Amino acid sequence: MGTPLSSDTTTSAAATITTGPIAGSHKHHLVVDHLRVPRRRIELTNGDHLDVYDTSGPYTDDAADIDVERGLAPTRDSWGRPAPIDGASTQLAWARAGIVTDEMRFIAAREGVDAELVRSEVAIGRAVIPANHRHPESEPMIIGKAFAVKINANIGNSAVTSSIAEEVEKMVWATRWGADTIMDLSTGKDIPMTREWILRNSPVPVGTVPIYQALEKVNGDPTKLTWEIYRDTVIEQAEQGVDYMTVHAGVLLRYVPLTARRVTGIVSRGGSIMAAWCLAHHEESFLYTHYDELCEIFRRYDITFSLGDGLRPGSIADANDEAQFAELRTLGELTTRAKAFGVQVMIEGPGHVPMHKIAENVRLEEELCEEAPFYTLGPLATDIAPAYDHITSAIGAAMIAQAGTAMLCYVTPKEHLGLPNRDDVKVGVITYKIAAHSADLAKGHPRAQERDDALSTARFEFRWTDQFNLALDPDTAREYHDETLPAEPAKTAHFCSMCGPKFCSMRISADVRAYAEENGLVTAEDIDRKLTEEMAAKSAEFAESGGRVYLPLEATADR
Amino acid sequence: MGTPLSSDTTTSAAATITTGPIAGSHKHHLVVDHLRVPRRRIELTNGDHLDVYDTSGPYTDDAADIDVERGLAPTRDSWGRPAPIDGASTQLAWARAGIVTDEMRFIAAREGVDAELVRSEVAIGRAVIPANHRHPESEPMIIGKAFAVKINANIGNSAVTSSIAEEVEKMVWATRWGADTIMDLSTGKDIPMTREWILRNSPVPVGTVPIYQALEKVNGDPTKLTWEIYRDTVIEQAEQGVDYMTVHAGVLLRYVPLTARRVTGIVSRGGSIMAAWCLAHHEESFLYTHYDELCEIFRRYDITFSLGDGLRPGSIADANDEAQFAELRTLGELTTRAKAFGVQVMIEGPGHVPMHKIAENVRLEEELCEEAPFYTLGPLATDIAPAYDHITSAIGAAMIAQAGTAMLCYVTPKEHLGLPNRDDVKVGVITYKIAAHSADLAKGHPRAQERDDALSTARFEFRWTDQFNLALDPDTAREYHDETLPAEPAKTAHFCSMCGPKFCSMRISADVRAYAEENGLVTAEDIDRKLTEEMAAKSAEFAESGGRVYLPLEATADR
Repeated sequence: MGTPLSSDTTTSAAATITTGPIAGSHKHHLVVDHLRVPRRRIELTNGDHLDVYDTSGPYTDDAADIDVERGLAPTRDSWGRPAPIDGASTQLAWARAGIVTDEMRFIAAREGVDAELVRSEVAIGRAVIPANHRHPESEPMIIGKAFAVKINANIGNSAVTSSIAEEVEKMVWATRWGADTIMDLSTGKDIPMTREWILRNSPVPVGTVPIYQALEKVNGDPTKLTWEIYRDTVIEQAEQGVDYMTVHAGVLLRYVPLTARRVTGIVSRGGSIMAAWCLAHHEESFLYTHYDELCEIFRRYDITFSLGDGLRPGSIADANDEAQFAELRTLGELTTRAKAFGVQVMIEGPGHVPMHKIAENVRLEEELCEEAPFYTLGPLATDIAPAYDHITSAIGAAMIAQAGTAMLCYVTPKEHLGLPNRDDVKVGVITYKIAAHSADLAKGHPRAQERDDALSTARFEFRWTDQFNLALDPDTAREYHDETLPAEPAKTAHFCSMCGPKFCSMRISADVRAYAEENGLVTAEDIDRKLTEEMAAKSAEFAESGGRVYLPLEATADR
Repeated sequence: MGTPLSSDTTTSAAATITTGPIAGSHKHHLVVDHLRVPRRRIELTNGDHLDVYDTSGPYTDDAADIDVERGLAPTRDSWGRPAPIDGASTQLAWARAGIVTDEMRFIAAREGVDAELVRSEVAIGRAVIPANHRHPESEPMIIGKAFAVKINANIGNSAVTSSIAEEVEKMVWATRWGADTIMDLSTGKDIPMTREWILRNSPVPVGTVPIYQALEKVNGDPTKLTWEIYRDTVIEQAEQGVDYMTVHAGVLLRYVPLTARRVTGIVSRGGSIMAAWCLAHHEESFLYTHYDELCEIFRRYDITFSLGDGLRPGSIADANDEAQFAELRTLGELTTRAKAFGVQVMIEGPGHVPMHKIAENVRLEEELCEEAPFYTLGPLATDIAPAYDHITSAIGAAMIAQAGTAMLCYVTPKEHLGLPNRDDVKVGVITYKIAAHSADLAKGHPRAQERDDALSTARFEFRWTDQFNLALDPDTAREYHDETLPAEPAKTAHFCSMCGPKFCSMRISADVRAYAEENGLVTAEDIDRKLTEEMAAKSAEFAESGGRVYLPLEATADR
């Protein structure tokens, strides 16, 4: 099933899709038998290169033939798929059985780790590989604390705004800049059609919140929802290839009144839908009572649970309260039940949390939910900066990822105010790449610092073009530089607009280095010896060699 | 001395100065005897108001008569000034003697704390009040870990760009959005004139790095610097009213070669100037050897030392290395020496530091430098995002402030790439207000959460205008909202563009609250009892009252 891509929509998405490599880089593939693992190779002007993790799919590959009406090649269909184990056709079941799947081997190459690490982390449920069999276009990736921190970008139309073509381009655009997964949160018209376009063209796993579409089927009245309507929606989305689904099965009837005294009540849409249903019917949530049936569906496709935190705090005041942690305890119970079916699970987390309450969220999640990967929305470290909530939340996101969160859901500058446009999506993704990478550094991820060192070395050596190209966003870095010093020779000039041509601290540092090397100064002892020996004698020598440095350079700037 | 403001510059600054209150607020004064302590009063549509700390000076006061050619009123000249103590005419000397100055009383009212706390923190050197007697236009403020975290904005022209008028407006603009101090880092032409304009118009303390101007006097050749040239520069700036000065007196000759093996050597301009001087002369830094003379000058004006970290790391790779901490030990020694003269001291800190190495910086600074206030530049938590270094550094800044840093030097999006323009200054300031405020929340600052709660309550109650006006940047919040829902009725609509008019989680939360209140559900026990009693019976009742909620609202959006 699924809506055919060729149906006559009034807008063709084709014209608006962004293709071609990011400045200064090109697609490179690690070839492991029949697996072609994508990397982005950044070529440097000194002849070196740096390969970085690449989420952008074929869109940045000059050799690829992109046709969004046809969709991406269903590459994973040609890979081997092991037989189901106890009815579970999932990465978790296979990992437990000691089987290293092609997806695991692909991921191992992609992350630069041993395939056995991938298998074992999946087997104990500390990592997930969201990979619905019906989404063969996706390039496998892993979410788990032992691996690079991942980020998700939410896209999706609402009743008020946006078209299908825009949403597909947002997906391509978000993955171009580094989104590891995307969630289609459409709530308006054409939900199935939008999703089909996104799935057939998405190189990354796609997540959804099926209750949104189910709600549309009952004209927006949560009290009219039924298990059957929900189940059919899940199956429809499963058949289309959705890789993970947010399920707010932890919003139990008895937890709902715990939110009554909150400053911001229930802010999760899914959570409030289920709260409304529970209160109206005075029955336990059908997501909870029918949870085992859901597990049976999920294990057929290998859909990963993203157990939603429907009672997450929507303000600093509500962080870490009883409503939030009561639900978390239930998510722990649901984790155990899903894993008994061989279904992969991750746990969604807050929201709004002041810095001093962040670590407790990770600690409790790990304790209550068998260390299932934590997937948090920010959290925002303060409520007072709407229009800058990508920043308020990047602070919380970096900290919660350092503490062990495996995936961060981005927040854009439009959070709380409106739907993100193309620019907002890019800013959100880059901001979250910063948070994720900062956490990788802090966690000592073995290869994370390579890129920092390469960029800082380029900066120190005045290789401006390399500095731009090694940046998360080369285009904006170059643009900002060119605002002050637009002339092309300034790209190789040994100064910048901060100090001007007459004086530059980086140049002095280069002199210090040359001096130390010429004089064999390596350790502090060398230096003490040298200073004692030559305190006065060396003065003239250095003044001579150093004097050269402070001659004004040719004025290469545009003024 | 000082350059007269009326001299015939070709550009008048007057035309470009931003005046008038921030949207939704007006100037309010706490009156404490003859002291008028400024607050910004945000008026809410529900009749409440919230007063917040206000750094913007008379520029946002509709009642003020602004004339930048005349400068601000020298208010502090009319306050009482105690007699010098042992030759020291400083807040530190008076605090130690048990004297509560007008500056301390002003600050106590401004921070909402007891004046005795202000005095005692200053007396032990854990807080500083940068207030040169020759800068009577400034509104006293305090930098110390027991108080709200402060932020500094750097402005200043360079050899490549910028005019005096632009710099004055940048100062007004930066303080409008919340800069607690500004540093004039001019390196190009007209340094004394630029500084004079800034000082005479600045309501916040002004810091400088005198070595920059001294370097101009020797045509940019650091090897030609002498103590005498430097001293005369300091006195010139002291007379003008500079409140604190960065002095890189901890860059000792023997530390310089420790930087030779670094990825990015010496990145501090002041540090590299002194390193070049030390190497060329093979003598100990004149800032170190003449430090006591400097203390004597500083105590005459009550200039605060900002002991510069000339060997701060310029990259993740160089963080927390021996060069950095060797200098920090010397800064500790210099702290003790300055305080013996009755001179106030703060300590500058990094720079570039990965998250897991941040806390160590604060711990060591406090241990080595008698808990003198720490004043850090970020730090950036990763090097890979030029053009987004306000964000990479906000992560580090929030964390280092949570750990005890008293003031954060902002970083703008142009860091490493160019000089900030007006928009960059605003983004830098707002970003750092976020970091500082997040830290205030995490440290449990008694009144910090008031604003978060007020904004979140406004959000929950759909008071859009209040939500905008309570934001750090009301203009941008409103602008973003209006991009999707520009119609004026949407400002009071009980929905937003994220979900559209048909469904809204906030509305459901309001229903939950109403339900709980109607039924007397306060504690978890109430809820359990209620559920047991009425599981089925209440169903109809809620459906009736809740049914109302999901009727579509009038379509007030522009579509």
